[in-house]
Amino acid sequence: MKLVVVRHGESAFNESNLFSGWEDVELTKKGIEEAKRAGARLAQQQIVFDHAFTSVLKRSIQSLNYILQEMNQDWLPVQKTWRLNERSYGALQRLNKAETAERQGKELVNRWRKSYDALPPMLDLSDPRHPIHDPRYRDVDPRLLPGGESLKTTLDRVLPCWADQIAPLLTEGKNILVVSHRNTLRALVKFLENISDDAIIHVDVPTGIPVVYEFDQNLNIVSKKELTGQTTIQ
Amino acid sequence: MKLVVVRHGESAFNESNLFSGWEDVELTKKGIEEAKRAGARLAQQQIVFDHAFTSVLKRSIQSLNYILQEMNQDWLPVQKTWRLNERSYGALQRLNKAETAERQGKELVNRWRKSYDALPPMLDLSDPRHPIHDPRYRDVDPRLLPGGESLKTTLDRVLPCWADQIAPLLTEGKNILVVSHRNTLRALVKFLENISDDAIIHVDVPTGIPVVYEFDQNLNIVSKKELTGQTTIQ
Repeated sequence: MKLVVVRHGESAFNESNLFSGWEDVELTKKGIEEAKRAGARLAQQQIVFDHAFTSVLKRSIQSLNYILQEMNQDWLPVQKTWRLNERSYGALQRLNKAETAERQGKELVNRWRKSYDALPPMLDLSDPRHPIHDPRYRDVDPRLLPGGESLKTTLDRVLPCWADQIAPLLTEGKNILVVSHRNTLRALVKFLENISDDAIIHVDVPTGIPVVYEFDQNLNIVSKKELTGQTTIQ
Repeated sequence: MKLVVVRHGESAFNESNLFSGWEDVELTKKGIEEAKRAGARLAQQQIVFDHAFTSVLKRSIQSLNYILQEMNQDWLPVQKTWRLNERSYGALQRLNKAETAERQGKELVNRWRKSYDALPPMLDLSDPRHPIHDPRYRDVDPRLLPGGESLKTTLDRVLPCWADQIAPLLTEGKNILVVSHRNTLRALVKFLENISDDAIIHVDVPTGIPVVYEFDQNLNIVSKKELTGQTTIQ
C-alpha cells in the first residue's frame, strides 16, 4: 500500500508573490510543466493507483489531471474535497507578501507564515472572499468554513479526510494519490511523520516532486522516497 | 433541473476512421478545441452544475476537464463510470471502417453500425482487447463486461446509471452534466425522448454541441435546446 503526495505546480499568485490560500488561482505555464514532469516521474514507477484525492481548487485539480494524463490513468476515481484545500490565509489573501511585510513588519508576517499555531487576520463573514459565499462549499456546514487558519487548524480539518477516507483504503491495500497544497501537505506530513510543532517550521514540500510513502498493515511508514528525477533519495 | 449532455471532441480514431468503442484513444487537437468551445458555450448559459458524469475513457474525461475549465467549475464532483463508455465495437475495434466495409461488405458493416440490435463480431475473453484484462474494470463484475454491444445492449447498461444516479439527482432539483460518447448518448436520448427502434437509426449527436434538457418534477422533458453557438434551436 502506497501513498503518493504531490504539491501542485506554480500558480499565478506564487509567481506574483501574493497570498493565495483559498483563492482559486490558475496554474502558470511553468506550473503546468511541473505537474506534467511529476506525472512522468510517477509513470516511470509504474504504480497503478486505486483512488486519487485533491482539493476543490483548480491549481490542484488541474495538476492532478496532468499527472493522470502522463500516467495514462485518466480513469482513476477522483475525490475533490475542501478538506484538502490550501491553508486559508484569511484577510491576507490577494495581498502581496513583500508589501504586507513592509506594512505589518517582517516579524509578524513571518510568524503568520511560519509558526505552527499563529492565525492570520480573519476574513469577516460579510467579506466576499469568505468561502461561505462560494457555491462550491454549499454542501459544507457553514460553521466549518474557515475565515483564516493556522497550520494547526489546517491539520484539524485535514485529519478527517485522512482518518475516514484515505487511511481505510490504505489498510485495504490500495494505492492512493493525493495532489494538494504546500501547507496542507506540510500539515499531513507533520502528522504522518510525527514531526514536532517546532520542527515543522523548517519542513517544506517542493512543487512537482512526488513523495512516495510505503506503509505496513498498521499504517506505520516503512519507506519514504522522493522522486526528484535525478538520484533517488531513499 | 437541467441535464446537459455533450459528446466528446474528435479522437485520433475518428480522425483516421478506425472503430474505437472501448479503446482508450486520445483527443486530437481539433477534439480539444471542440471541447473548449462546448465549455465556452455552456459558460455563457451560466448554469451552475451540481454533479458531472463521464465514462472511464480519456477522450470523454479530458473533454469534461476542458469544459469544466472553461466554465470555471473545475471543483465540480465528477463520477467516472464504465456505464457511460462508448458502445463496444467488439472485434471490430482498431479496424479501419472503410477497409472493413470492403472486406465484409458495405451492407453488413452498415448493419453493425446503424441498426438498433445488431451485435458486432464479439471479442474473445482471451483477446487482450477484452475489458476483462484492463485494471480500470477490476471492480466491475466480469460477467457484465461486454465483448461487443449493439445499441440496444448499450442502452441496457447505460440505464442503471440514469435510473440509479442521474434521475434521483434531477428529482432533487440538481443540474447535471454528462460528457460521453456518440452511441452512449444516442442510446440515452432514445430512452429520454422515447424514440422508436427504427427512428433512432437516423438520430445522431454532433461533437462539441451541448444539448440542454429541462425536466419537470416527474422527469418529463419540458424543453430541449442545442447550443450550436449561432442561432439557438428551441
